[in-house]
Order: sequence, then structure tokens, then C-alpha cells
Amino acid sequence: TNPVFTGINTTVFETMSRLAMAHGAVNLGQGFPDVDGPEDIRQVAADALMEGPNQYPPMLGLPDLRAAVAEANKRFYGLDIDPNRNVLITSGATEALADSLFALVEPGDEVVLIEPLYDCYLPLVKQAGGVPVTVRVTPPDWQLDEAALRAAFSSKTKAILLNNPMNPTAKVFSDAELGLIAELCRAHDAYAICDEVYEHLVFDGHRHTPLMAFEGMRERTLRIGSAGKTFSLTGWKVGYITGPETMLDAVSKAHQWVTFTTPPNLQKAVAYGLRKEDAYYAGLADELMQKRDRMAAGLQALGFNVLPCSATYFLTCGIDGLGLGATDVEACETLVRDAGVAAVPVSAFYGSDAPTGYVRFCFCKRNEVIDEALTRLGAFL
Amino acid sequence: TNPVFTGINTTVFETMSRLAMAHGAVNLGQGFPDVDGPEDIRQVAADALMEGPNQYPPMLGLPDLRAAVAEANKRFYGLDIDPNRNVLITSGATEALADSLFALVEPGDEVVLIEPLYDCYLPLVKQAGGVPVTVRVTPPDWQLDEAALRAAFSSKTKAILLNNPMNPTAKVFSDAELGLIAELCRAHDAYAICDEVYEHLVFDGHRHTPLMAFEGMRERTLRIGSAGKTFSLTGWKVGYITGPETMLDAVSKAHQWVTFTTPPNLQKAVAYGLRKEDAYYAGLADELMQKRDRMAAGLQALGFNVLPCSATYFLTCGIDGLGLGATDVEACETLVRDAGVAAVPVSAFYGSDAPTGYVRFCFCKRNEVIDEALTRLGAFL
Ligand SMILES: CSCCC(=O)C(=O)O
Ligand SMILES: CSCCC(=O)C(=O)O
Repeated sequence: TNPVFTGINTTVFETMSRLAMAHGAVNLGQGFPDVDGPEDIRQVAADALMEGPNQYPPMLGLPDLRAAVAEANKRFYGLDIDPNRNVLITSGATEALADSLFALVEPGDEVVLIEPLYDCYLPLVKQAGGVPVTVRVTPPDWQLDEAALRAAFSSKTKAILLNNPMNPTAKVFSDAELGLIAELCRAHDAYAICDEVYEHLVFDGHRHTPLMAFEGMRERTLRIGSAGKTFSLTGWKVGYITGPETMLDAVSKAHQWVTFTTPPNLQKAVAYGLRKEDAYYAGLADELMQKRDRMAAGLQALGFNVLPCSATYFLTCGIDGLGLGATDVEACETLVRDAGVAAVPVSAFYGSDAPTGYVRFCFCKRNEVIDEALTRLGAFL
Repeated sequence: TNPVFTGINTTVFETMSRLAMAHGAVNLGQGFPDVDGPEDIRQVAADALMEGPNQYPPMLGLPDLRAAVAEANKRFYGLDIDPNRNVLITSGATEALADSLFALVEPGDEVVLIEPLYDCYLPLVKQAGGVPVTVRVTPPDWQLDEAALRAAFSSKTKAILLNNPMNPTAKVFSDAELGLIAELCRAHDAYAICDEVYEHLVFDGHRHTPLMAFEGMRERTLRIGSAGKTFSLTGWKVGYITGPETMLDAVSKAHQWVTFTTPPNLQKAVAYGLRKEDAYYAGLADELMQKRDRMAAGLQALGFNVLPCSATYFLTCGIDGLGLGATDVEACETLVRDAGVAAVPVSAFYGSDAPTGYVRFCFCKRNEVIDEALTRLGAFL
């Protein structure tokens, strides 16, 4: 078998969910809400199943969903997107990333990545034949080091893969940081592949600004969004890519050989969902912010060193001094087994030489579930 | 961009569907039914959307669907399959093929393919780093040439990718042919990746026998099935792979980086569907066989040289002497534009040096639609 994919373990999110199940633990590991998204969106999807057609939709996605994605780009970011040329629908953001990398990267091309990183990035870059070049943001403030980023770009750089807002750091990149990234992409004629699945889960008055909105980036940026994260329906696996026609043409070729299309009833419902009033989006962020505060206060009181969280639904915490084990992996094993709470070790978000003093808790859970987890952690600690 | 994927045109099925739409043609190109599959299956999917959860299911697939796939393997082929070890659910058979090739093929490995072939096979083998070695079956009888197949296998052979029943030839491989393939796989310690999405669309008392059922093949074969084809719901994109645990472990690693999971409500409904009584499966094949006969008789009367069709929902026809153009591509352009009927040129199923005298018509359409297509063809010819 090919070691690029098969030499890697099962993803930590799946592994922790299995352990949580086996131990009857409260699952704060894998990132998914425990309450499904809006009933009216699901009703549209259900009605479309009964009305049909349930056959292959257009390979680029339903025209109605492409239009809705374009409208959302205009409404939230002022971006003018042509639904017929600049949008591709995929079976989730993971497929969108795979398609983008398979289409753009040629063997030997360098791809700049920022660690900690979502765990599919490294295998996908390697499977595409690319050479990952990693730069780090470091806790507790997760600032991007300008010199290190500059040094990562070279004449071999084909693309940067940027996750903003960033999992697991819960960081929203600053305008200065994005401006620097844009400058380097322009200077090295590099593409940007932007995983922006947490675009609407942003707190404390922070605003998400797509890298695509920066000078000279429209013609070189793919922006990936996710209905799963935006509508709390992670099982649906409906993603969308916006970008220039030349890039999307290439990516659609990869898409056609990888999944070809995405279920039409789910696409129809996501089109409906994207057109929801501003209050939906504001309410989603507001509710999550309250959950963040609830969990952060509880964890802090128990001795966790809770790092700042401006976005996503994840809290990263230092575990020094808690006596949970020598590493974050040991700590998570202890927590799931003995405390009955599943978390994810932050070292899983690194290729190598990972810091081992941090764990990630997912807070998009019912308040009772958050409280139960805190109670269990308190009883154990 | 990477030419392996992006150097290839948009798939002929999508292209013909777009042309059919543009010209108001009856679309007998892309293979999909014009009547959606069973309402009760769709109702299960709709109910599951409303009941939830709509979050990430297990990466290998819902336990209930894996159990149903195992049951179906027992019921139809007498194969004993462990649902916990031998089944993986994917977002359609295309993703199943991509996952299988990405997991098993290492750069430089040879993969034996039989032409004519489904158009994603060549790009997927190449993107996986493999070297395609093609053997042909030739019209009108599409027999497999033993000497050519023997010559295609070597010490470099990693796998054969077999489509049985075969699109577009509508061929069911004979036991003798399958026995030969099995012998060669064993002799060269090669894997078999079997695309069996048309397993239930088999006519005239032919029986589909999985290559996996042949001696020594259980431990080296991946068998791919498709809910889209089996339940006339091609938009759902739910596929399933059965195979030995060691192979599936590898393939699941590719799956986790390519799409990760498949919508749980659709999985639940497919589990329900797979357990339908034998009459459903028999009725499906019977109805299609009648449509085949209706279309074949009509095309034959118009002067098409209709080749035998034992399976799938495709009829391949010789067009010599009809004056439709110098090649099958020209003929399909003429047909969609001037006759108002979309077909697919069979040359699209070849890497190079394709025969150019055949076109493929899809017959899983309402009788009125078949008749309308025949009327239009008659008026034009
Ligand atoms: C694809 S499972 C992981 C979900 C997720 O985004 C996370 O937990 O970080
Ligand atoms: C994935 S679109 C093509 C459908 C099909 O299987 C065919 O037409 O051969």
C-alpha cells in the first residue's frame, strides 16, 4: 500500500470519538454540535428528497446553491462573485481541499502550511506530490512570525494553505498578518487556498476578512466554506469553493474524478440556509460565545490555562501542573478513561516536534453537557 | 496546475448533459434514470433528516448500513462479510475508486485496465502514481483475449481494475474469464479492484458473480457497489466497499482525507433499501430489460447496429452507414443538435486509438421518453 495515506493513523477526531463511546465519556473531542441546525433547513432537504429529482445534479453544483454562495460572498464580504464561473460545490470542505491540492500542486511544488494544522493538510499535500514547508504560530498568543513566514516562501512555492479562523488555535488572523501573506503570495506568484469553514463562528466583535479580499488576491485565491459548520449539520458534507474561473476550472476536473457531484437535496437546502437573515448568523455566533465563556470559566477554575479564543468552537488549554500525564496524549487518555471527558491532544495538529502541553475542548454542546463535563473534570482533578 | 487531472476535459457525461439541456434534446447520454427510486427509501432518508442526528457519522459508515451491506453480500453471493471489519461506506462509487487507488497504488506500480473503460479510471490511476496497462475487449462480442490479458500482467502489476458488469459494453464477464483473471491475480500476487455498481442490473438469466467469490480472491479483492445504481438515486452518492480488513484499513485512510464521511440520513435509507425483498431487485432488472428491448427494437429498425446487452442500462450501437458523421463524436454532435437526442460517443471510454463507429444510448427512461427519442431519431434519419 501507498504509505502517504496509509502510513498515517486514523484521524485523532475519529479515534477520540470511538474512545469516548467506549468509555461512556462526554465527547468534547471531535468538533461537532450536539444539537442539529435549523429545522426549516432540514425540512427543505427532506421535501426535496420526496419531490426529487434525486439524480446527478450538475457537476459544478446546483445553480441555485451557486447563486446563494455568490450572494453570501457579496453580503458578508462585498465580494462580487459570478455564480456561473466562480463557484464549485463539493462533498464537504475536506473534498474541497483534496480537489484544490490535486488540481494545483505538481510534484516537487512547495506548499506553505501554518502549524498547528488540521490533520488532513499534510497527507493531502504529500499525496498531491507537494513538499510541505511549515511555519508555526506559538502559544499563548499564536502570533505569526514575519521573518519565519518570509523565509518559508521561495521560487518553489506553489501555494499557501491558510486556515482562518484557525483550528485549534481559535485565532482570527489580523489584517496585518493577512496583508503580509497577500504580499508574499503576490511577490512569489503563489496561490492561496483558504480553509475558512469557521468564517461565521467569530466572537467579541472580531470580523472575519477573507484573504481573497486583499489586493491582488482575487485572481490567485480559492476560498473554501462549509455548510456543516455554518448550519450545525456536520454530517451533510456540503462545501463550497469560490475563486477565479481559471483556478476553478482546474479544481472542477479534480472534483469530477473524486466524487463528481454532491446530493442535490442537501444542496437545495444549503442554498435556502445561506439566505437566512443576518439574525441567524449573529445568533449562532452569540450562542457559541456564551458557551465558550461558560466552558472557559469552568476550565479556568479547575486549573486549566485557558488560552484566548476569538473564533471556531474550540478552546485550547495548557495542562501544566494538573498532573494529567507527561504529554497531551497521555492527558487525553487519562481524561477519557478516568474523568469520562474526551478532548483532543493539540500535538495531533503538528507534523513533528509538537508542543505537548495543550489539549483542545469542543464547546458547541448543550449547556447541560458542558456542565456535566466540568463536573466530571472537577470530581477527577 | 497539475496536468494529470486538469489536462483532461470535462467528463463526457457532464458535457453531453449540458448539450442536451442547451439543445432541448432527449438526454440518453449520461447514465441516470428519469424516475427516482422507491418512495419508501426516500421517506426513510427524509425522516432521518428531521429526527437527526445530522452530525458526522462514524468514518467507516453507519453500523446499520455496514450490516446491511454484509447481509446483501450473503444473500446474493453467499459471501460471509464481517460488517465491522470488511465494509467501508463512501460518498459514491467514484470516491470508492479514488480511495482504493490512492491507498493501494505506489508510484510506478502497474494497474491493468480493460478498455473500453469508465472515464475516471485513467486519471485516477495516474494521479495515484500508477502506470496503466490496458487490454481491450472488442466489439461486437467484447470477448476478453486470453493472451493479451496474460501479457498485461507482470511482476510490476499491483492491481487489476475490473468493471463487471461492464459499462459501456453491457457485458457480464463469463466464469471462464473471471477464472482467468483470478488465476493471473494469484500468480502475480495482484489486487483486484472490482467496480460492480451494475451488479443488480443483469438480464436474460445471466447471473452476476463477484470476482471476490473466486478461489484465492477473498484476501485480495475490493468489491465496490453503489446505492445510486441499485436504487435509481444517482444523486445520493452512497457507495460501499467490501474487502479484507488489511486492504480496507488502508482504503479507509484515504477515505478519511478525501471526504471523511457520508451523509448519515442517506446511509440510513440505503441500509433500509438493501434489505428490500427479492422482488424489488427482480422487478428492477425486469423493468430495465423491457426498456432495453423497447429501445433496441426501435434503434435496430432505424438502422443502428445494436450490440448485445446483458446488463447495465446502456445500449451500444454501431453507426456505420447511417451518415451521422465521420466519427462517433461527430455523430453525437449531429444527434444532439439536429435530431434532438443526446447519446455518448464510445470513443470517450478509451485512452487512445479508440474505435469511432459506436455510440451509447442510456435506456433507464420512461417509455414515453424512449419513444419520443425514437420518433425524433426516425424523423431525422
Ligand atoms: C472531520 S472530523 C473533525 C472535525 C473537526 O473539524 C475538528 O474536530 O477539528
Ligand atoms: C458520473 S456521470 C456518468 C454516469 C455513468 O455512470 C455513465 O453515464 O456511464
